[in-house]
Amino acid sequence: MSNVYSMIPVPQAQQIVLDHCWTLGSETIPSHEAVGRVLSVSVVAPDSLPPFPASIKDGYAVISSDGIGTYNVVGESRAGSMDSPNPAQGTVVYITTGAPVPLGFDAVVQVEDTEEVPSEKVEEEEGTMTSSDYKQAGRKNRRVRILKAASPGQDIRVVGSDILVGETVLRSGEVIGVAEIGILATVGATHVTVYKQPHVGVMSTGDEVVEPSTSPLGPGQIRDANRSMILAAAAKAGAKVTDLGIARDTEGHIQGCFDRAVSAGVDVLITSGGVSMGDRDLVKPLLERTGTIHFGRVLMKPGKPLTFATLSLPSAAPGEGGDPSSEPQRSMMVFGLPGNPVSSFACFYLTTLPALRKLMGWSNPMLRRVQVKLAQTLKMDPERPEYHRVALQWSKCPFLEGRAEHVGCDWWAVSTGNQISSRLLSARSANALLEVPQASGFLRQGTLVSAILIDDLQAMPDPDGLSLQ
Amino acid sequence: MSNVYSMIPVPQAQQIVLDHCWTLGSETIPSHEAVGRVLSVSVVAPDSLPPFPASIKDGYAVISSDGIGTYNVVGESRAGSMDSPNPAQGTVVYITTGAPVPLGFDAVVQVEDTEEVPSEKVEEEEGTMTSSDYKQAGRKNRRVRILKAASPGQDIRVVGSDILVGETVLRSGEVIGVAEIGILATVGATHVTVYKQPHVGVMSTGDEVVEPSTSPLGPGQIRDANRSMILAAAAKAGAKVTDLGIARDTEGHIQGCFDRAVSAGVDVLITSGGVSMGDRDLVKPLLERTGTIHFGRVLMKPGKPLTFATLSLPSAAPGEGGDPSSEPQRSMMVFGLPGNPVSSFACFYLTTLPALRKLMGWSNPMLRRVQVKLAQTLKMDPERPEYHRVALQWSKCPFLEGRAEHVGCDWWAVSTGNQISSRLLSARSANALLEVPQASGFLRQGTLVSAILIDDLQAMPDPDGLSLQ
Ligand SMILES: [Mg+2]
Ligand SMILES: [Mg+2]
Repeated sequence: MSNVYSMIPVPQAQQIVLDHCWTLGSETIPSHEAVGRVLSVSVVAPDSLPPFPASIKDGYAVISSDGIGTYNVVGESRAGSMDSPNPAQGTVVYITTGAPVPLGFDAVVQVEDTEEVPSEKVEEEEGTMTSSDYKQAGRKNRRVRILKAASPGQDIRVVGSDILVGETVLRSGEVIGVAEIGILATVGATHVTVYKQPHVGVMSTGDEVVEPSTSPLGPGQIRDANRSMILAAAAKAGAKVTDLGIARDTEGHIQGCFDRAVSAGVDVLITSGGVSMGDRDLVKPLLERTGTIHFGRVLMKPGKPLTFATLSLPSAAPGEGGDPSSEPQRSMMVFGLPGNPVSSFACFYLTTLPALRKLMGWSNPMLRRVQVKLAQTLKMDPERPEYHRVALQWSKCPFLEGRAEHVGCDWWAVSTGNQISSRLLSARSANALLEVPQASGFLRQGTLVSAILIDDLQAMPDPDGLSLQ
Repeated sequence: MSNVYSMIPVPQAQQIVLDHCWTLGSETIPSHEAVGRVLSVSVVAPDSLPPFPASIKDGYAVISSDGIGTYNVVGESRAGSMDSPNPAQGTVVYITTGAPVPLGFDAVVQVEDTEEVPSEKVEEEEGTMTSSDYKQAGRKNRRVRILKAASPGQDIRVVGSDILVGETVLRSGEVIGVAEIGILATVGATHVTVYKQPHVGVMSTGDEVVEPSTSPLGPGQIRDANRSMILAAAAKAGAKVTDLGIARDTEGHIQGCFDRAVSAGVDVLITSGGVSMGDRDLVKPLLERTGTIHFGRVLMKPGKPLTFATLSLPSAAPGEGGDPSSEPQRSMMVFGLPGNPVSSFACFYLTTLPALRKLMGWSNPMLRRVQVKLAQTLKMDPERPEYHRVALQWSKCPFLEGRAEHVGCDWWAVSTGNQISSRLLSARSANALLEVPQASGFLRQGTLVSAILIDDLQAMPDPDGLSLQ
């Protein structure tokens, strides 16, 4: 059996997976639930912003041709409440930031460039009035001196200067984040049309594999780390997830889990274990019989037995409630991840996550690759490229610490230690997979190496305490 | 009033905010709900991994001193099921990857370094047996030739080589991510003790501000973008959130929202609007009377009127259900964000988010700062440092596109365009705030500038299509 599958390079495996992704349908959901989702329909502004000419400053709306001089304050325009004075040469209107500039006025003079001229009546009574009385009375009969002539349009945001009616404010294919939520609210989009979430089912296989709650462990048993981990990863990626449990190493038991995945309406089934070449590695044989295996060995370390298949399903799954006619021929993608936890971790990020992103509508679903400097010398493997777990950090050179050359910051990749594929601690705090080339010898400390981002750099180590300015 | 608050620099404002953060209590939750939470108690392994000496290869467990030769296969050890043969010189045990090495055997020889020797009986019957029969029969009476002598311990993971019983596998203060979920499962930690989530209440203020669902807008109205946006940002940061609505520009209305925040048990109240110097900017006066304002103006663009206060609360809020005795003196932090949406966006990231992270237990709650090259020339502001919204990308030099020098990749900061504080489109797709120094003149294209990460770089623009290898 081991010769049935030729060993393909990772980029080819990634391409095959993406080529087998279809497009999930769309759904319309409340905007406040849309963070992380991808727009399937662009959002267009139904009105302009500002919807009225708006003042940029606290000050006075003026008729710019009036120029310097002393004018009657004939009204007030505040955010949310505005007098409607008749514009006339020689008058001004008190205005606050963001408030509408009344019709007929064409500039704003900021309050710093003006001087209040209390009316005579108010001045007479000044001694007996509180400052608040004064303000109230003053409003009715105020005069102001404009000290700087305004140019037409000065300190006014014209209608539509931020957003023009009919403008596309968010494009189909954009991932909705925090700012996008604000933009949706601004244009009155309380609901948005987004790609559906892929439904991911996750199962583990293995006679030795037991529930994490098992304690003490029986002879030969190990706890199932993969299922919790992959469920968490798929949910974090934005998928709906279903826990399909642990299958024993029998065809019947594994088939039972597959059947439950199908009836739950799963789009993507992720298994772990059972893809090696032993006579109790039954996932591949089952996929061979019931579907199409697109690859069954990948040139990578860890993760060599990674398997990808598709199963055609007769019709839309019951219990999903969707419109079956909109997705004519259902099929299920199956990722057969290796059983070692680090292998399943690396394989998920390198092949499954891009697939989930593509299903969710990302226009560029591939993980981002950057170049970083190596904080320590690494031995390369002449047999396979290795995806070495590292924590990227922006810092001074870690291996020159305490020396005069320890200046200037750069992106450094710090290894998480022993990379044996059973040791999940090597994935702890990892935010990238370093691409260590297939070669003899060593990659020296300080070498520029490419790294694939697998986690948010907002939580990256900050060893130099740079973060507070 | 405008002179009451001295203008302080952003780092000082950040420090003041962090100095006023207290520690929330802990709670024990199911591990599968713990992604994004921070451990308040370290996690220790209750048993070793592997819990038994485990084979690294498919092959034969041997007694290494036996060396090269032909041996009887006296048993099998597979993941989850193991014969218990009596170890004896001159015998071997068939073993699969990850399976326990039976007692008395001290090395594994991989199958590639062995040769099966069918027993004579089996050889006689060979003609009439299927290969599966053969395997079955062969198991009972097999012999194997070991072609390479094994050294003691070869291809065996010793007990505890991945995790040692009693080892701290996750430390208090660590943020729980995908790999950490797997590690928790591995050590049988179905529940974890984590810092509580801060409870954040969000309100907007302003007579002009209306619900996003309002359409068409009445005269002088604008839709409330800030509340949805800040609710989304706080939830994304891991907080529990409560929507406190929109307050009119009256003290009574604003006080009413404050009261609702208190009775909901809010730890952090975020308001927007009402912090400028107009006579209807009532948030600051109210905070002055009911709490302590720690700063009321910050040297930043946008965001100058940013206000931070604390209110002492008489006792634990009812309706929270927590143990009041564990948090003796409750207080509420109040962030008075400016009303312009971009100002509230920038102020949230620069001051509120670090506070939320600190409350949630992050050991380094500050946003991470990196250095990037400027993709276009920017005008600096001599009055204030500017937090210019940019999309960071790893790419070739964007402004040399098509030219021979357009080689080699670097981190580039691409401006999101017009930075006026009312234009929320300038925050669309932004993943960093560029720190543009307070100065005259221009920052030239290509200059190295510091940038503060505000979003996940895993979704950064990938203009060169680098991502598929
Ligand atoms: Mg197995
Ligand atoms: Mg206001």
